[in-house]
Amino acid sequence: MTSQNPLLAIDLGGSKIVTALVSPDGEIMARDYTLTLPEEGTEAVIERMLAAIDSVTSKMNMSLSLFSNIAIAAAGAIDSEKGIVTASPNLPGWLDVPLKEIMEKALGLKTFLINDASAAALGEHYFGAGRGISNLIYITVSTGIGGGIIIDGKLYLGVSGSAGEIGHMTIDINGPRCNCGNIGCLEVLASGKAVAREAQRLIARGSKTIMLELAEGEPQNISAQTVSAAAQKGDTLALAIIFKAATYLGVGIVNLVNIFNPEMIIVGGGMAQMGKMLLAPARQVVAERAFQLPAQRVRIVPNQLGENAGVLGAAAFVQKLAKPL
Amino acid sequence: MTSQNPLLAIDLGGSKIVTALVSPDGEIMARDYTLTLPEEGTEAVIERMLAAIDSVTSKMNMSLSLFSNIAIAAAGAIDSEKGIVTASPNLPGWLDVPLKEIMEKALGLKTFLINDASAAALGEHYFGAGRGISNLIYITVSTGIGGGIIIDGKLYLGVSGSAGEIGHMTIDINGPRCNCGNIGCLEVLASGKAVAREAQRLIARGSKTIMLELAEGEPQNISAQTVSAAAQKGDTLALAIIFKAATYLGVGIVNLVNIFNPEMIIVGGGMAQMGKMLLAPARQVVAERAFQLPAQRVRIVPNQLGENAGVLGAAAFVQKLAKPL
Repeated sequence: MTSQNPLLAIDLGGSKIVTALVSPDGEIMARDYTLTLPEEGTEAVIERMLAAIDSVTSKMNMSLSLFSNIAIAAAGAIDSEKGIVTASPNLPGWLDVPLKEIMEKALGLKTFLINDASAAALGEHYFGAGRGISNLIYITVSTGIGGGIIIDGKLYLGVSGSAGEIGHMTIDINGPRCNCGNIGCLEVLASGKAVAREAQRLIARGSKTIMLELAEGEPQNISAQTVSAAAQKGDTLALAIIFKAATYLGVGIVNLVNIFNPEMIIVGGGMAQMGKMLLAPARQVVAERAFQLPAQRVRIVPNQLGENAGVLGAAAFVQKLAKPL
Repeated sequence: MTSQNPLLAIDLGGSKIVTALVSPDGEIMARDYTLTLPEEGTEAVIERMLAAIDSVTSKMNMSLSLFSNIAIAAAGAIDSEKGIVTASPNLPGWLDVPLKEIMEKALGLKTFLINDASAAALGEHYFGAGRGISNLIYITVSTGIGGGIIIDGKLYLGVSGSAGEIGHMTIDINGPRCNCGNIGCLEVLASGKAVAREAQRLIARGSKTIMLELAEGEPQNISAQTVSAAAQKGDTLALAIIFKAATYLGVGIVNLVNIFNPEMIIVGGGMAQMGKMLLAPARQVVAERAFQLPAQRVRIVPNQLGENAGVLGAAAFVQKLAKPL
């Protein structure tokens, strides 16, 4: 085996698991997509991850013995050194799960674990919107909100590997409690979950909207995608909900702009597919509220790699860390 | 002149100007302290800075011609490259002031300009509470709230030199407007100014307190120091006001802990003199709300250099940047 062999990478999110064989220059050679369904428990999710690895290696007709490493990006607070998912607001039940140890036993491959948003930041930095940018922050707005910080061209992980939890900054001290235990976090106000919850709340109060129709009359079926679809059809309530979430996102970005004075902020995750509907109000808030100097300097852009950012970044992370055989 | 000559450094804050001759190993050889009185205008403040330089050089019987550089730490958003104070919530009227150019003309010395809290972060990192710590955040809680970020042993300044404005992160999206134009900033809730304002507000509403007596019956004379003095005498209202500010500070620190996963957070500035009264509730909030992994890892400590952190850090900044003659 040479260092030109593909890398195995998994992106374990709150909603979906993306598994891929990635070439050293960042090409996806085989890919598996499956829902996470975290409510079925840790073991069921790990079984799905193992099946996905089987699926992508089979697609390329490669046996596991051809690999030496596997890169896993996981949603939540990760202890990268120990390879533990210490807590994960969007993977309920994942408390101090020694994922590195579990995967090494199951696969016989050296396992590297990083936070999913950190991985996506690396992916966008090496292969996507952030190529050539040394100081950037990647924000993923999906089920939850996560982040990855690139400083001087390197992933900044903090003293124990958990840096970048920008979804869990309080922006509304009197706001609702977040899954993470903190109060009024950006995530509880602007994530996909927050948008769906707000739609359900307003519909329960009798607001008129086509969302109910799109969800086949079942309010609990309304997701961020439903809100987005309704907004694209001009539904006033859906537009207002997205505008509010985008404003919260803008406030979070203001905080990052004032603190980091970054060259670029990349917005990814499922919600980023809303495009200008999300980014335009957020940019407006930054122009109005952030310090002028950093606000004029920063570019706030959509991601380029979509759902592949996590696996591409995780693969790049391991490629830089691991010595080729 | 050798590189062992002392350095000239000024710390221009919203309340006070500290000017010093600093030895290369971080000893203060001569020092001048004067009030800033920014309400008298930019020119008056610059006159005071020039007089202070005269004062410290005279104390050591040294002429300006013996120096080649001067280091200035200033409160506000600084464009370090251009040497401009672009905006400063606590130096009203300072908008795009080309301080580097002004001082170079007045003194004939190469002038280096950085943010005051960034300078203090460097000071504490080289000579104070943060010696040997590579990843730390310094928070100054005084008239305003500022910050300095040390990453991998280096001051992180962002792409245009204005990083570290942690006092201007929104933590209460429905809170009061801040001098900086943003809403519900940490500074407008937990700074010395905020504490004094809150005391005045509650007294105007008829709350009982010894603060009025300490301020000789004049509510407008009540400062953060008055609140602190009253709290030390057990005044319930003063204690409650400080507890509230400390809680806000804790929320700000939670955000930084979740985002940076730093090894240490150093709290300095005038309010830090309140000691445990300020730090204990803030630490409690961090323990309760931040992600467990980074919360358990971080040490939240008081500063060690007091009012000298800024001049010591500014001197160190220039010492590292400037080649010795």
